[in-house]
Amino acid sequence: MIYDVIILGAGPAGMTAAIYALRSNKKVLILEKETIGGQMSSSPLIENYPGYKGISGSKLANELYDQVINLGGELEIEEVLKITPGEIKTVTTDMGTHQAKTIIIATGAKYRRLGLEKEEEFIGNGISFCVACDGAFYKNKEVAIIGGGNSAVINALALSDICKKVYVIQNLSDLTAEATLSEKLKSKENVEITYNALVKELKGEDNLTGIIIKDENNKETELKLDGMFISIGLEAQNDFVKDEITLNSYGYIESNNDCETNQKGIYVAGDCRSKKIRQITTATADGSISAINAISYLNK
Amino acid sequence: MIYDVIILGAGPAGMTAAIYALRSNKKVLILEKETIGGQMSSSPLIENYPGYKGISGSKLANELYDQVINLGGELEIEEVLKITPGEIKTVTTDMGTHQAKTIIIATGAKYRRLGLEKEEEFIGNGISFCVACDGAFYKNKEVAIIGGGNSAVINALALSDICKKVYVIQNLSDLTAEATLSEKLKSKENVEITYNALVKELKGEDNLTGIIIKDENNKETELKLDGMFISIGLEAQNDFVKDEITLNSYGYIESNNDCETNQKGIYVAGDCRSKKIRQITTATADGSISAINAISYLNK
Repeated sequence: MIYDVIILGAGPAGMTAAIYALRSNKKVLILEKETIGGQMSSSPLIENYPGYKGISGSKLANELYDQVINLGGELEIEEVLKITPGEIKTVTTDMGTHQAKTIIIATGAKYRRLGLEKEEEFIGNGISFCVACDGAFYKNKEVAIIGGGNSAVINALALSDICKKVYVIQNLSDLTAEATLSEKLKSKENVEITYNALVKELKGEDNLTGIIIKDENNKETELKLDGMFISIGLEAQNDFVKDEITLNSYGYIESNNDCETNQKGIYVAGDCRSKKIRQITTATADGSISAINAISYLNK
Repeated sequence: MIYDVIILGAGPAGMTAAIYALRSNKKVLILEKETIGGQMSSSPLIENYPGYKGISGSKLANELYDQVINLGGELEIEEVLKITPGEIKTVTTDMGTHQAKTIIIATGAKYRRLGLEKEEEFIGNGISFCVACDGAFYKNKEVAIIGGGNSAVINALALSDICKKVYVIQNLSDLTAEATLSEKLKSKENVEITYNALVKELKGEDNLTGIIIKDENNKETELKLDGMFISIGLEAQNDFVKDEITLNSYGYIESNNDCETNQKGIYVAGDCRSKKIRQITTATADGSISAINAISYLNK
């Protein structure tokens, strides 16, 4: 069986691509290694996805999954180990091989963690990574942001407009963001920056209620918090295609605005793609664009 | 009152931008001249918006409107006549003027019509413009596509995979699409192309049931149809900003991938923007991107 499209990843990008390809009568297989819905499935409440005032990430993932299955999509839980380009492409997984005329890579990315006990458990329960997604839940509350690069400082500035108090915990002796951004952040009255400090411990039972930070002199301080944003980077997981597909220096897949990679008939969509803004909306847009272009490639 | 963001247009792009800006605690005004929801509001059933197996365009528009109002957004029905750039921008409407630090233009585009009686009434009831949106509703049915350029031929190829029979009605003596596409279409067994022909009349009571076409010899033929796709182009409606904002040769607003126009603090989102693929998903992505960049501009 040769599929028209094999989609790697069942997050919003991959599932949208599947919806478009299926509605064009193409044979579609989705391969997902872990969680249907991808990163969003750990969000207890999404308020910035247009069309839903509020929905949990797992509920939205289920809606998407139903939509795909309802259109006749097939989904298998398999980890992709390798793809082989060519007119007919081969996808090698931990379970075997599959063949397709086109591939859409939508394997997502993962926010870097601090590596602390209870961290995974608190994600969605006080720990978040995305201020555009979850900042509004902390209106007039006290939060910390961990990091000091461009994203961390942009995020901290956005939080300072929303929250009562924003602690910034940076492990270096200064912020590493652009000077204008850093200066602006330092001038904010409700922002307190601690340098040369690390988060040592997370406090709380079911939800994060505070953190213990340790400074350069090993002095420990406890901060009571309503929430914490970890902003120390995002990691692509594209190593499995690095021999076939061009990645940028951060490991994201290079593509043009048509979501085309360097290999004919192989497309990329969502967070694994080299781009600036990673939101559910931008993932679904990539899903549509990659699928429409794959369909047009198949029809040529 | 100086708003942080004035958004022109209450379609999916504009309303998504509003959701993002409001959740960042910005003062937001949306101005819409006609219909909340924009073009999608004429779709009786949308199946390719991720998260809804099936929803009418007007219902999705209402969901978005509720989401915006719930977050404290203001919306006024006013027609924008002119925008004046500057640090503080002025928006002149048929009702007065408004001021803002940033503007997001999301005024959409409009598919060209044939100009026939009952045409508006049949939109969503047998007449459609978007194959990626509505093609799947005509599985194993008989449809016509009006046009012969690149979009029409790409659309006709996609329909030929879905439908039993596809009539292509072209007003010239040949297709004007790329040769490879045109050749491919001509080779399809279930596609019948009529050249030098115009649609003269639409048949049907509540739904389109057929069309009368007239060829170069004034011979009239009636085609019984389940649906018709009009593919004779899309028109931007950006004349009101043409003195301030750079448009491309088709009248769409030029921007970079950050949705920035040539004017500082003025962004563009959705169908009115120069881009290739116009879907609800790509409109909401532009909405997110333009708003995130406007927020970051405001915070600098």
